[in-house]
Amino acid sequence: MGVDFPHRHLLEIGPLSPEDLWTVLKTARNLKEVLRRPIPKVPTLRGKVVAHLFFEPSTRTRLSFERAAKVLSAEVLNFSARGSSLEKGENLLDTIKNVAAMGPDLLVIRHPASGAPHFVARKIGIPVINAGDGFHEHPTQALLDLLTVWERKGDFQGLKVAIIGDIRHSRVAHSDILAFRKLGAEVWVSGPGTMLPPEREALGARVVRRVEEAVEGADVVMALRVQKERHGRSLFPSWHEYSRFFGLNRRVLSRAAEGALLMHPGPINWGVELAPELEDFPGQVILEQVENGVAVRMALLLLLLKAAEA
Amino acid sequence: MGVDFPHRHLLEIGPLSPEDLWTVLKTARNLKEVLRRPIPKVPTLRGKVVAHLFFEPSTRTRLSFERAAKVLSAEVLNFSARGSSLEKGENLLDTIKNVAAMGPDLLVIRHPASGAPHFVARKIGIPVINAGDGFHEHPTQALLDLLTVWERKGDFQGLKVAIIGDIRHSRVAHSDILAFRKLGAEVWVSGPGTMLPPEREALGARVVRRVEEAVEGADVVMALRVQKERHGRSLFPSWHEYSRFFGLNRRVLSRAAEGALLMHPGPINWGVELAPELEDFPGQVILEQVENGVAVRMALLLLLLKAAEA
Amino acid sequence: MGVDFPHRHLLEIGPLSPEDLWTVLKTARNLKEVLRRPIPKVPTLRGKVVAHLFFEPSTRTRLSFERAAKVLSAEVLNFSARGSSLEKGENLLDTIKNVAAMGPDLLVIRHPASGAPHFVARKIGIPVINAGDGFHEHPTQALLDLLTVWERKGDFQGLKVAIIGDIRHSRVAHSDILAFRKLGAEVWVSGPGTMLPPEREALGARVVRRVEEAVEGADVVMALRVQKERHGRSLFPSWHEYSRFFGLNRRVLSRAAEGALLMHPGPINWGVELAPELEDFPGQVILEQVENGVAVRMALLLLLLKAAEA
Repeated sequence: MGVDFPHRHLLEIGPLSPEDLWTVLKTARNLKEVLRRPIPKVPTLRGKVVAHLFFEPSTRTRLSFERAAKVLSAEVLNFSARGSSLEKGENLLDTIKNVAAMGPDLLVIRHPASGAPHFVARKIGIPVINAGDGFHEHPTQALLDLLTVWERKGDFQGLKVAIIGDIRHSRVAHSDILAFRKLGAEVWVSGPGTMLPPEREALGARVVRRVEEAVEGADVVMALRVQKERHGRSLFPSWHEYSRFFGLNRRVLSRAAEGALLMHPGPINWGVELAPELEDFPGQVILEQVENGVAVRMALLLLLLKAAEA
Repeated sequence: MGVDFPHRHLLEIGPLSPEDLWTVLKTARNLKEVLRRPIPKVPTLRGKVVAHLFFEPSTRTRLSFERAAKVLSAEVLNFSARGSSLEKGENLLDTIKNVAAMGPDLLVIRHPASGAPHFVARKIGIPVINAGDGFHEHPTQALLDLLTVWERKGDFQGLKVAIIGDIRHSRVAHSDILAFRKLGAEVWVSGPGTMLPPEREALGARVVRRVEEAVEGADVVMALRVQKERHGRSLFPSWHEYSRFFGLNRRVLSRAAEGALLMHPGPINWGVELAPELEDFPGQVILEQVENGVAVRMALLLLLLKAAEA
Repeated sequence: MGVDFPHRHLLEIGPLSPEDLWTVLKTARNLKEVLRRPIPKVPTLRGKVVAHLFFEPSTRTRLSFERAAKVLSAEVLNFSARGSSLEKGENLLDTIKNVAAMGPDLLVIRHPASGAPHFVARKIGIPVINAGDGFHEHPTQALLDLLTVWERKGDFQGLKVAIIGDIRHSRVAHSDILAFRKLGAEVWVSGPGTMLPPEREALGARVVRRVEEAVEGADVVMALRVQKERHGRSLFPSWHEYSRFFGLNRRVLSRAAEGALLMHPGPINWGVELAPELEDFPGQVILEQVENGVAVRMALLLLLLKAAEA
């Protein structure tokens, strides 16, 4: 199976061909069968060790990778930036080399600096998965989003995907725009003017100012999280303004196509990017995204570790 | 075995019948045999996943559940409130749903808000164990206390149990009063006036102002922890006063029945609720409580997960 | 194998005979074969439980012990001083007793107070490994340093080992001086005057003021970490001065013997104790030290747990 995936690392969506994306999606869908078993555990990666290096807080991504590893019987070495040598001022490369010297077979890294996983990948001899790097990319999120849409819609050709929010600073948006476009969807983005990239830097997405225009006829509507903790007090627009002009609600979503999906990478600020009334919106698939996250990460661990063996 | 335990969750002592309590105690006592083996590990819950969600600091309870899970070959997903999405402002329900979407078979939750585990249990489809919620209950602590007393005393009928300390705000006290009374013991409580409930809210315990009166003829004397971290500087009475009037020592315990047990849920403030001279008090069974905690939690994991399968 | 190692604990280097050191080294070297297997896992310690109690931040030591345990199929109970009962003011002994009551077979402890592991070892009935105590000792670091030098140099007789830095406050230096001398090497130490012990307290090491004199003809040169986080702002000499007078660089190392090894316990402050140009120094074996750390800790877990069974 590994021979079908000609990449050593998963650092960003850019280098992946549509075939590569399909390989991940199909592998993940097959692995969901394992997750549905009474005892969801297979010995496939027994004895393999996955090192987790999270230099930013994370719940779902870290737990999702941990669960994926354990279903495949791999072991996890958890490194967190707190209680660690980082507090003693160690540089990233030394930290990575030290973890690597303990013999893991693969590294999963989240880091506040864009490009950190690429830097690490160039320096060590084992596969690296980017679990989110600064404002750059979050490729496993895009893959789980693809899987969720594929399962619900059957294909990507001709789909209109609308992404709403802080497009400019969202690693999720960047990975999603690239991934959906590679498989034949068109992507429209909207959000506050200060959070929108110019069209030429939008990675092929169509940039529009009015949310309604992006959502009009969309098959998939994805709200991004407002990064309260990054913007601090100086958020412009204010939350209230954000909610009023860019928050999704039933009225806005009534413009979307029949059976449109509503997605969000989480964690959600209810009342800001999503109106509370959307919790039972029929096309809301936010927890399916979480479930698919485990399957996609299982697929990547399998593909990269098998490729590394070959 | 699961058919004997007609509860989906363990949220509080109230709904448990005496038979239910005995089922847990007998299961736990049987499982202690496993703990005494040279290799204390059985495959009973292999492939099951227990998610731990601790929204308050904890050593013993978290480690105790973790050990219990591992002896039964279940896996643990550890979620702590630090380094998590909670710092990004995610609400409890979303956090829980997200963890649940990763496929655990059971949730263990500790939360500073009374009733949080009940709320969670209503919202998700898997068993929930309350590992302590606010000022409300700590039912696994009561069960391990029962096991400890049962092993030492052989029965509960006619025993006098004295609980000393901040009865009003102690989730341990609330669970213990209910549990010991269900099995036929009488419970007396005492402590500073500001920390005592009125008799009608004492869950059937006898409330007395003088510690000596509560301890008189008691078969079991349990000191509660003074929650320094909750009372802050404004503790009234002061520690010194607390120790003088409500701290246990040899003199006070000389009033208890022959062979009385001395218990404490830990962590202990030596010199406050217990005089240092009590470290070698003959009936001191504080570490037996800790050991029995593992057995009781094993029993609950087993009973609830088997019931969930049936 | 356990019969060859007549110690219940590993608390410090002092009580170990040369034969004991060789037993650890040979066991560790044999176990490196396991680490090189495609699936580096053996069932040797299946069902054994190792409790980790780290009261100071640590990356490499904690992960190294965790990896060592898992390769041998032992389980790990991770206790960290954060999010724990320690925040509630529990004393060390109670914490230890509580962890012990959960049934671990061995404790690994790091603590800021010198002698804490010895105190713990006297109080509980299971083997204790000191993973670093205050300014006192860090014996597993010395053992991995021995293994690294043995593999590279073949023997210790007649070797000159130079240790540079804050000798007085370094637990690594203390353990290394004792360990290398026991196996026949001579140890020279140098560093800023305020950081050097008087010769009579130097554990048999030769104390010299000029780094060049210590390095002259040395077969092994070990730089210690400058503990920025301990010295705070008042570091004397300043980092700049430290680097200028006591930092190692190619010029200083040109005085060492042909094929000299360059070692560092990590984490490294590049530009302070080591010039960046030393990253590709031919005898630099810093990552070999890390790898050997896993093997040495595997050996100790095996020797102490087998001895405890006998």
